[in-house]
Amino acid sequence: MDRLIIFDTTLRDGEQSPGASMTKEEKVRIAKQLEKMRVDVIEAGFAAASPGDFEAVQAVASAIKDSTVCSLARAQAGDIQKAGDAIKPAAHGRIHTFIATSPIHMQHKLRMQPDQVLAAAVDAVKFARTLTDDVEFSAEDAVRSEIDFLCRVFEAVIDAGAKTINVPDTVGYSIPDLWAERFKTLIERVPNADKVVWSTHCHNDLGMAVANSLAAVRAGARQVECTINGLGERAGNASLEEIVMAVRTRKDVFNVATGIDATQIVPASKLVSTITGYPVQPNKAVVGANAFAHESGIHQDGVLKHRETYEIMRAQDVGWHTNKLTLGKLSGRNAFKTRLSELGIELEGEVALNAAFKKFKELADKKSEIFDDDLHALVSDEAVTPEVEHFQLVSITAHTETGEEPFAKVTIAEDHKEKHAESRGAGPVDATFSAIESIAHSDAELLLYSVNNVTQGTDSQGEVTVRLSKGGRIVNGIGADTDIVVASAKAYVNALNKLAGAQKLNPQLSP
Amino acid sequence: MDRLIIFDTTLRDGEQSPGASMTKEEKVRIAKQLEKMRVDVIEAGFAAASPGDFEAVQAVASAIKDSTVCSLARAQAGDIQKAGDAIKPAAHGRIHTFIATSPIHMQHKLRMQPDQVLAAAVDAVKFARTLTDDVEFSAEDAVRSEIDFLCRVFEAVIDAGAKTINVPDTVGYSIPDLWAERFKTLIERVPNADKVVWSTHCHNDLGMAVANSLAAVRAGARQVECTINGLGERAGNASLEEIVMAVRTRKDVFNVATGIDATQIVPASKLVSTITGYPVQPNKAVVGANAFAHESGIHQDGVLKHRETYEIMRAQDVGWHTNKLTLGKLSGRNAFKTRLSELGIELEGEVALNAAFKKFKELADKKSEIFDDDLHALVSDEAVTPEVEHFQLVSITAHTETGEEPFAKVTIAEDHKEKHAESRGAGPVDATFSAIESIAHSDAELLLYSVNNVTQGTDSQGEVTVRLSKGGRIVNGIGADTDIVVASAKAYVNALNKLAGAQKLNPQLSP
Repeated sequence: MDRLIIFDTTLRDGEQSPGASMTKEEKVRIAKQLEKMRVDVIEAGFAAASPGDFEAVQAVASAIKDSTVCSLARAQAGDIQKAGDAIKPAAHGRIHTFIATSPIHMQHKLRMQPDQVLAAAVDAVKFARTLTDDVEFSAEDAVRSEIDFLCRVFEAVIDAGAKTINVPDTVGYSIPDLWAERFKTLIERVPNADKVVWSTHCHNDLGMAVANSLAAVRAGARQVECTINGLGERAGNASLEEIVMAVRTRKDVFNVATGIDATQIVPASKLVSTITGYPVQPNKAVVGANAFAHESGIHQDGVLKHRETYEIMRAQDVGWHTNKLTLGKLSGRNAFKTRLSELGIELEGEVALNAAFKKFKELADKKSEIFDDDLHALVSDEAVTPEVEHFQLVSITAHTETGEEPFAKVTIAEDHKEKHAESRGAGPVDATFSAIESIAHSDAELLLYSVNNVTQGTDSQGEVTVRLSKGGRIVNGIGADTDIVVASAKAYVNALNKLAGAQKLNPQLSP
Repeated sequence: MDRLIIFDTTLRDGEQSPGASMTKEEKVRIAKQLEKMRVDVIEAGFAAASPGDFEAVQAVASAIKDSTVCSLARAQAGDIQKAGDAIKPAAHGRIHTFIATSPIHMQHKLRMQPDQVLAAAVDAVKFARTLTDDVEFSAEDAVRSEIDFLCRVFEAVIDAGAKTINVPDTVGYSIPDLWAERFKTLIERVPNADKVVWSTHCHNDLGMAVANSLAAVRAGARQVECTINGLGERAGNASLEEIVMAVRTRKDVFNVATGIDATQIVPASKLVSTITGYPVQPNKAVVGANAFAHESGIHQDGVLKHRETYEIMRAQDVGWHTNKLTLGKLSGRNAFKTRLSELGIELEGEVALNAAFKKFKELADKKSEIFDDDLHALVSDEAVTPEVEHFQLVSITAHTETGEEPFAKVTIAEDHKEKHAESRGAGPVDATFSAIESIAHSDAELLLYSVNNVTQGTDSQGEVTVRLSKGGRIVNGIGADTDIVVASAKAYVNALNKLAGAQKLNPQLSP
């Protein structure tokens, strides 16, 4: 049975979701989970986009041993050099270079002639090969490119040394039949097609990213580019979890195998959701809360009589019910540190560890059972991040009473100087945000306020995401607490700190 | 160009999502929106499941004039009689009867021989035809049924008078190629295939419900069964919005047209999400908040230079940005009533209207701009439902202060007798729920607590869903308020009232 290479681009295409920008530390945490899940290739970012992106790719390359670590690069020497430098620490490093090949992109975006595009592609691949043996080439908007030109470009870049040829449906426009046909034609017509791995990268604008990817696999593709939870530009990319489970559940049809440890899928899904603030809808396949729930009477009856009447996968196969009760009130610092490390969380230095342990003790006082997901939320929380924060939440009081306007009072340390403010608002969260704003004067626009439950039960932690926009930059702040008002305040302060932090450019492009 | 019939089953298969049970009034509101969107067939429920389900189907049948209204029925005379009675008020009524045809279902669930199943199917269709001309037959688990048997059954039920033959992928197991092949074979081999409309009903367990449905369309199916937001059992059904927009965007391939007014898609998505408490993830195709957002620099640049470089659909085509600012502080009772009616919301009686108008005035005091979505949330709110409620929230005080345990005090009227309670908890919401519980003593289990923003801005209303489970029953309570603690209390009380209300059985089955 052929091996299907799983190329995860959560850290690159997924990061291009509005507000999903991740810090270096967050990328490393996700990368470690991907490695644990045995993803073949981790696209860690676009090194040339900004110094922050460069450092993040480099940090992932240093932290990961088993998976190949990849950086995206436009077909330009500067980009490729930066990608090569960033992946240097990797045990296995890949440069992924791309250029658009469709008439509409060449004409309106690149303003280049087809021959110039072809030459740039070949030069890019040749140069990338001087930096690493493992070079992937993508023809952006391949779905709308002319097939003759696409064949010419691919033949040339394979001659130039590309090892993987990626064919992206950049705008999510294809349907399975046509996508399979495109792969069949390419593999038949490109004379040196047998020298490379063919790869597919599909977007979900019409809801068919997974089906298109798998149609390509049936037509000969042996790498699928995908993301956890289907995160990505617009309606996102193909979902890793759906690809993996479809291939596994229907191996009679696909006749390929991935190397993925599927029991790590649900933990990976929760981690990505926690870090990016992007919730997963309950009726999402595989990782949605309802994916394995059976509501109707007959279905339940059927399931009891014979599991396979209504279930084609088992919940435990994809890692449901693995959220273990791990620590309690009496757990010590060492047990805490060990568990974090088992979860792939490495805090930088003793100060950060102590801060996290203190948070843990506070949480254990309020919440009887501490789950793995609580620990992920805890370290995502702004209070334990090692950097010196511009704003810190010192204390908060909030009051709601029928017939009165809700009220909040906050104390915020700005560069260690305590400031007090109070405000009324439409609710305690609104009042809290107004009070914080009256100290911070950010004038940022609130784009999103969302609450996720971290674990079940009435004493569950709430995890709040606050998305702020200012001067074209969008940041997500995250805060977790058993008190929703406190979690909201933390999230708002976290977002303000991200706005105040070093300017991190948004990724500039994508196949 | 052929017409593709859009059969919406949000009110039947969608309702089978855990906790998504809807009241009669809620079903009518959604049905009116579906009619406005020009859905061809509305499956309103399963009339024989319970007296409540019967009344809901009947209410939808009475309210809808343009769309066909359909009830599901097992292949049993009792079910079919109830379905026929329930759809009697409809301008166009359909009975949808089904029986399982796969070996695994016949053996383990039905415990019937194939010949018995065939006879039951024929009898069911014949009897249904005595009640209405428009009869649809489904072969449950057709995906795993033997093709010879399936052909025999379909030929016989067509002879018996079925007008639509539905082929369901009950377990979400198929892939597009195989699904298309199945339709091709059926349409070729069933001798009287040309006398009926072929229909597909796909589940999304492997993420391919939409692609499978559309593969069936390419193979000759002319009806797709789907739901708003892809709601439904487990990972849900094919998404109506993705089906409609794929067919429209790729009419070059599909060569069929739907009658859908696509600009009603986003309002329908929001309404279903509000009523069921099921959020839509941001990276959901068409109706997700990010579906038309462009994050990365190059993409934005590309979009500015030429919209079609990265967009294949326009946001306004599917009804984004139609959430109009409609009412303000000074709007009168008549303007309010008119706008509700334009939104398809008919409140039963003056008492309900007055209660809603009072709520509206309270909201307008707290919130400067009132949008359509606010009005939907407002009437979803328990306080304006016309029934006499067992519990009513009279007042609430909640207090959070750093270093102290959060605290809440509530006054609840139980059968009009006021009771007071106070409690501490891990947060103000936890404390509020404990206080309410100490009055209600429901001992229900809290399965889910979720918060959605109704509209944007800091003074936005929060809409809270509380899912409670008790004795095998699952209910969703919904509450909306600009104050998240108050919204939570309302949602909890609403859920308690639903638990206290008439026993509504869960739907018992589904193709």
